[in-house]
Amino acid sequence: MTIITLLTDFGSKNGFSGVLKGVIWKIAPDVHIADITHEITPQNIMEGAIALWRAAVYFPAGTIHVAIVDPGVGTSRRSLAARIGDQFFVGPDNGLFTPLLEQAEQAGQPVTIIHLTNPQYWLAEVSNTFHGRDIFSPVAAHLAVGIPLEKMGTPINDPVRLRMPQPIKIPGGWRGQVVLIDIFGNIATNLNADLVKKNTNVVLKIASRSIQGLVKSYGEGKAGDVVALVDSENFIEVAVVNGNGAQNLGVTIGERVELQFL
Amino acid sequence: MTIITLLTDFGSKNGFSGVLKGVIWKIAPDVHIADITHEITPQNIMEGAIALWRAAVYFPAGTIHVAIVDPGVGTSRRSLAARIGDQFFVGPDNGLFTPLLEQAEQAGQPVTIIHLTNPQYWLAEVSNTFHGRDIFSPVAAHLAVGIPLEKMGTPINDPVRLRMPQPIKIPGGWRGQVVLIDIFGNIATNLNADLVKKNTNVVLKIASRSIQGLVKSYGEGKAGDVVALVDSENFIEVAVVNGNGAQNLGVTIGERVELQFL
Amino acid sequence: MTIITLLTDFGSKNGFSGVLKGVIWKIAPDVHIADITHEITPQNIMEGAIALWRAAVYFPAGTIHVAIVDPGVGTSRRSLAARIGDQFFVGPDNGLFTPLLEQAEQAGQPVTIIHLTNPQYWLAEVSNTFHGRDIFSPVAAHLAVGIPLEKMGTPINDPVRLRMPQPIKIPGGWRGQVVLIDIFGNIATNLNADLVKKNTNVVLKIASRSIQGLVKSYGEGKAGDVVALVDSENFIEVAVVNGNGAQNLGVTIGERVELQFL
Repeated sequence: MTIITLLTDFGSKNGFSGVLKGVIWKIAPDVHIADITHEITPQNIMEGAIALWRAAVYFPAGTIHVAIVDPGVGTSRRSLAARIGDQFFVGPDNGLFTPLLEQAEQAGQPVTIIHLTNPQYWLAEVSNTFHGRDIFSPVAAHLAVGIPLEKMGTPINDPVRLRMPQPIKIPGGWRGQVVLIDIFGNIATNLNADLVKKNTNVVLKIASRSIQGLVKSYGEGKAGDVVALVDSENFIEVAVVNGNGAQNLGVTIGERVELQFL
Repeated sequence: MTIITLLTDFGSKNGFSGVLKGVIWKIAPDVHIADITHEITPQNIMEGAIALWRAAVYFPAGTIHVAIVDPGVGTSRRSLAARIGDQFFVGPDNGLFTPLLEQAEQAGQPVTIIHLTNPQYWLAEVSNTFHGRDIFSPVAAHLAVGIPLEKMGTPINDPVRLRMPQPIKIPGGWRGQVVLIDIFGNIATNLNADLVKKNTNVVLKIASRSIQGLVKSYGEGKAGDVVALVDSENFIEVAVVNGNGAQNLGVTIGERVELQFL
Repeated sequence: MTIITLLTDFGSKNGFSGVLKGVIWKIAPDVHIADITHEITPQNIMEGAIALWRAAVYFPAGTIHVAIVDPGVGTSRRSLAARIGDQFFVGPDNGLFTPLLEQAEQAGQPVTIIHLTNPQYWLAEVSNTFHGRDIFSPVAAHLAVGIPLEKMGTPINDPVRLRMPQPIKIPGGWRGQVVLIDIFGNIATNLNADLVKKNTNVVLKIASRSIQGLVKSYGEGKAGDVVALVDSENFIEVAVVNGNGAQNLGVTIGERVELQFL
């Protein structure tokens, strides 16, 4: 059974995500629909891009991801559908798919991007404020029932791209930044654990703290300890054992992190 | 595959909405279940009624909507199931279905309302505090597997109705009110855009602001602008571009809005 | 169609629960997935255990429940899958299943508990921070497609158990405590309504209030009244009619409650 996922900044109060499901199941009655999240910070495209990129890989080939963080809805910003590797992505042309595109290009995977221009696969009436309902969900549903991507519009090769924060080589190590804070207050950085490899004789500096070495799991420290470890996506993470790291250290997204080899 | 939707004020913390799914799938293993929202303000029937009415139309014919905002649970208030147009609705008799009934009656669509009196289609034990689990979900599931609505109880034609806020004609325009504020702080009014038609030479007055004319999309203004536009349901909406309109203007549900033609 | 449920402390912001669905559907494309809740207070095993126990009974035989409140992830704490009565449960060995085990044992139902040691049914790479994704969800999905529980690892009979709060007999009545507060502020105790039976000539003491007798439903009192009643799980509950009982009385989980027969 084909899966369509939803990632939005709609929140859960107003019923908007439910409406997307109605629209999808009206066209494609047999698909599974999985909410990835509807709690992206309103209009924060970078946060949406990172969340989508982290989640998509765990879905099967053929999954269709609908991503809607769309401050430019109703303006001249384009609507897109893309085949990236073996999955599909539908949403506004504002950079939401940047990390997925970069990853596919680095891996030499095929990428096809279509500017959605064929209203045959949209709702009959298209508002200027809710393309998630009127364009993106119906396009995803039509993909799910087998309409070829190429029928949805015109191929393009200049999608809007975000400038993703990259780690910078510095004397004796790397400088990175905080890219995500999870519900537990764990602090994810953009420092890939491959930078460290087997050499865990390191110091991690963040918010005027210096953390010696990496632990293997949260439980290796004792309650209240500030620890660094490799997170579930293979990036270096800072956490407070049984506590909220971000609150404890006063850290927010964008905060600078330095990794020093000893 | 039949769809059952859920709209409640249960929140997501306590697992109540999950329980409804268990009850439904035990009786009707093949239905899709879509959460519309579980974040209606506790016991706010009017808010639930408006959210349900806005969402239902996007679901296919035959969809069964379970709506539970039910401060009177366990008292003598009746339990209902209804066929309104080509969909079904199940919930307490407290006005939750008022806008759907009014809309169907204005459109000349058929309406059948059944007072749920047949315990054969309920759970074996019925509590006094959770009819969503014990009556409404099992009734919805039995409808989904093909039990005729008429078997569920006794026809009635006097359901409880809310007094929905209606716009009032005033010299030179209309007076309406705010009926919904969404996650972005956008301010939905009960002024249908058909009141304006092609004549967008208007002033909208709200919270001692005067907004000249309507824009087509949020992006037409610049960040921080207070704009008025037609929302995705064809009502006039007030928004702050890339900001939170309701917070900015200090507006809550019920606030008065005036539309003046120039 | 087999049902897999999810109960976690992941919240809804970061997409973790969506990832679990991708992992499950990749292995078991035809299952239903029901979120029970993702809003368990982070790392509160007792709260998770009570929520799971209250919800599970409403799901059909054969349902597979994945429960993840897991502060010990990546340490030597064991991973478990169990058949308890006619359902399956997968999660960390930290007491999450205690009330279900106690209930099954009291009812003389069969219980099989397996220590998960067979990596054949896990993701190929297992992190030290996210066993919900890497072990528990794939194990649940493999159970759903028919792999026998016994193939997942080694039988054990010494699972970690929580000490569940039990009511204590006192002169003239019982002493219990608050175990759950719901979205409405209703205060659930561990005093089973069977303690009262038909004799509702009682006083309930909580937070220096004395509540005379039990009402049948919230609506039997008038707005603002503090009432006691039998909740939907057959326990004694304290509520404020059309208000928030927990806020009103300043009560939190663990608060002492006394039941006195008159």
